[in-house]
Order: sequence, then C-alpha cells, then structure tokens
Amino acid sequence: MKLYDGGRAPNPRRVRIFLAEKGISVPLVPVDIMKGEHKTPAFTSLNPMQRIPSLVLDDGTVISESIAICRYFEALQPEPALFGRGPAGCALVEMWQRRMELDLLLAVAAVFRHTHPSMVTLEAQQVAEWGEANRSRVASFLTFLDGHLEGREFVAGDEFSVADITGLVAVDFMRLPRIPVPEGLANVKRWHGALAARPSAKA
Amino acid sequence: MKLYDGGRAPNPRRVRIFLAEKGISVPLVPVDIMKGEHKTPAFTSLNPMQRIPSLVLDDGTVISESIAICRYFEALQPEPALFGRGPAGCALVEMWQRRMELDLLLAVAAVFRHTHPSMVTLEAQQVAEWGEANRSRVASFLTFLDGHLEGREFVAGDEFSVADITGLVAVDFMRLPRIPVPEGLANVKRWHGALAARPSAKA
Repeated sequence: MKLYDGGRAPNPRRVRIFLAEKGISVPLVPVDIMKGEHKTPAFTSLNPMQRIPSLVLDDGTVISESIAICRYFEALQPEPALFGRGPAGCALVEMWQRRMELDLLLAVAAVFRHTHPSMVTLEAQQVAEWGEANRSRVASFLTFLDGHLEGREFVAGDEFSVADITGLVAVDFMRLPRIPVPEGLANVKRWHGALAARPSAKA
Repeated sequence: MKLYDGGRAPNPRRVRIFLAEKGISVPLVPVDIMKGEHKTPAFTSLNPMQRIPSLVLDDGTVISESIAICRYFEALQPEPALFGRGPAGCALVEMWQRRMELDLLLAVAAVFRHTHPSMVTLEAQQVAEWGEANRSRVASFLTFLDGHLEGREFVAGDEFSVADITGLVAVDFMRLPRIPVPEGLANVKRWHGALAARPSAKA
C-alpha cells in the first residue's frame, strides 16, 4: 500500500491526521502540486482526476478522495472510531463532516483558489468576485459553529471525529488567504486550540 | 420519524430515490423553498442551516444532509447495499459518490443558482461569471465519466449504488439551467437511460 501525499495542501493533511489518530503508518509518496507532479502521465494513469491524496492498494486498486481513503482505514481498523458509533451517531458525524467540508473548507478553498496569484496555475478560470463572496460565507458559518460548540468539546457527539479533523484543517487553511476568525468566537477558538494541541495536528 | 422534503429540488430527490430502492416508507412533510418555508422560525429551530431534506427521529434527533440521511437508513436496513460492500468496495462507492456530487451536482447547481433569475431569492450573492465558468466543468466531468462508463453498467463496482443516484439526479438537474449533455457521450446516455427507467427514478 502507498499513499500519494501532497505536503501542506489541506486534503492530504486531513488523511495524515486521520492516520495519526488511528496510529496507522502508511508509506508516503510525495507529490508536489506546485511543480505540477499531479499532472504527469504516470500520476494521471493512477488517478485521471489528477488529485491528491490517492491511495494505491497492493492489488492496484486506487482510492482517491480524502474521506473515501479515511473510510477505508476506518473499516480496516475500527478503533478509535472516527466516523461515529451506531446508526444515528454515524449519521451525525457524516452531517457535521459534510458541513465542515462543504460550508467551511470548500469556502476557504474558493477564497484562496480564486483570489491568490499563485493559484493561477491550478485554477482553470479564476473568478475573483466568487473568491471574495466566499469570505462572508466563511464568517457566517464560523459564527453558526460557535453557537453549536457552546458547552461541547467536539463538533459531532462526545468523541473526537473526522468532522473535527476537517474543521481543524479548514481553520488552519484560512491563514493562506488571510481570512481572520471573526472577533468574539470564544467557542471556536477554544475548540480549535484544543485540536491544534493534539499530537496528530503535526501530521 | 418524519422526513422534511422539498419537492423537485435535487437533494430531497436523492433521498426519496434511495428510500425507494430500499423499499422504505417514511412520512414526508413538504417544505416549499420557493415560498421560503425553510426559513420559518419553526423549521429553523429544527435545522438552523435552513436546508432540506432533514430527518427528525422519534427522540427528536435531527439529521440533515442527504448523504447523512441515506447512511442512517443504510445502517438500519443494510440490504440492498447502496454504499458498497467490504472496505475497498465501500471506499470506491464513497469516492464516486463524492465525484458525482462535488464535480457534477455542485457544478450544475452553481450554474443554476448563479445564473437563473429565479435563484436571486435563494443565493445571497449571485456571481454570474462563476455560474458560467461551471458549464465547462460539467462538460469536462461528463466526458471523463463517459470513458469510465465504457463497459460498465454502474458507476462504482458491479452494483447500483448511491453514486448512481447522485449522478442521475445531477444529470436530470441539468435541464433547469439548460446545460446539454455533450454530443457523443454514448456511455453516459446509456447509463442515464437505464437509471431513469428504474421505478425509483419517479420518487
């Protein structure tokens, strides 16, 4: 098994944190997207969508999409459970992981990819107005999240989960396009600080 | 248990098709988003993100996000398996369901929400340039999908799955913003035709 990894990019980091929380070690193959290594013929034959991370199993099966890779390892090694427990618990982790991804991580990524000069090479068509519009989506989602985190240690249920991982990575990613966490969101700051202090955050 | 449903909108339809494939019947509560019924205080107290579908369990737990709701029913009633079988099989369904959603359904939705006059009331800030940019994302993803579907009946593995449901709903949704399926994609047309002929497609 080999994990094609991408350094500082947010999606590869999600998988590395997930593996660190599980205590699973997988051989990593670095892919430098700023050098276009995800667009080489060799990598394209592995993953025609030219995205990292991508996991290659010993039988040659290629699994891409961070959350799909994480689910594969959850099935191989269920503990600690990072996708929830029981039908309702798992559904709530899925709900919050999706909110963290679709409403936060993707909004931060839209700001970065559509407004940052270095992203001209990665984004087929930068639409600056769309990038800027996402700044307010980030702020309003974090304000909603702050209310939800009142009296809660983790985003979904009583245990750390993949929803927290996506949230941590998304908030850290806000530094690149210089999106501030709005003033006064004490619960978001506490939650983020606690996640950033876990050993897995260094992965 | 009650499912807050939304008529012709694509996400509620995904859940209804999923339930039809499982043979599960759930009481539906219609929510008319064009009349703003998802923004009433009563509905907002159920789901502060003001989105449908939302499933309310008998103990008051609210599960929103279509795929989270589908996963809940998959856990309650595993057969027919619509999220795959085995660690690698489930991971590949997750991968394809995400591609169908993030690269196709969301791209179609971006065209519709950012270019259609009727969507001014739903989209906080319409960015027409972003909507138009997504037309080519839809076309290039469908071209990629056509190659993948060569010799395959379903998108992920040998069985019908939730990835097919998202794909069917996304392609049908293309009619509203008048996005054509590019000429010559015979595999996409065959696959879509077969899915559209299943009784569940009427749900």
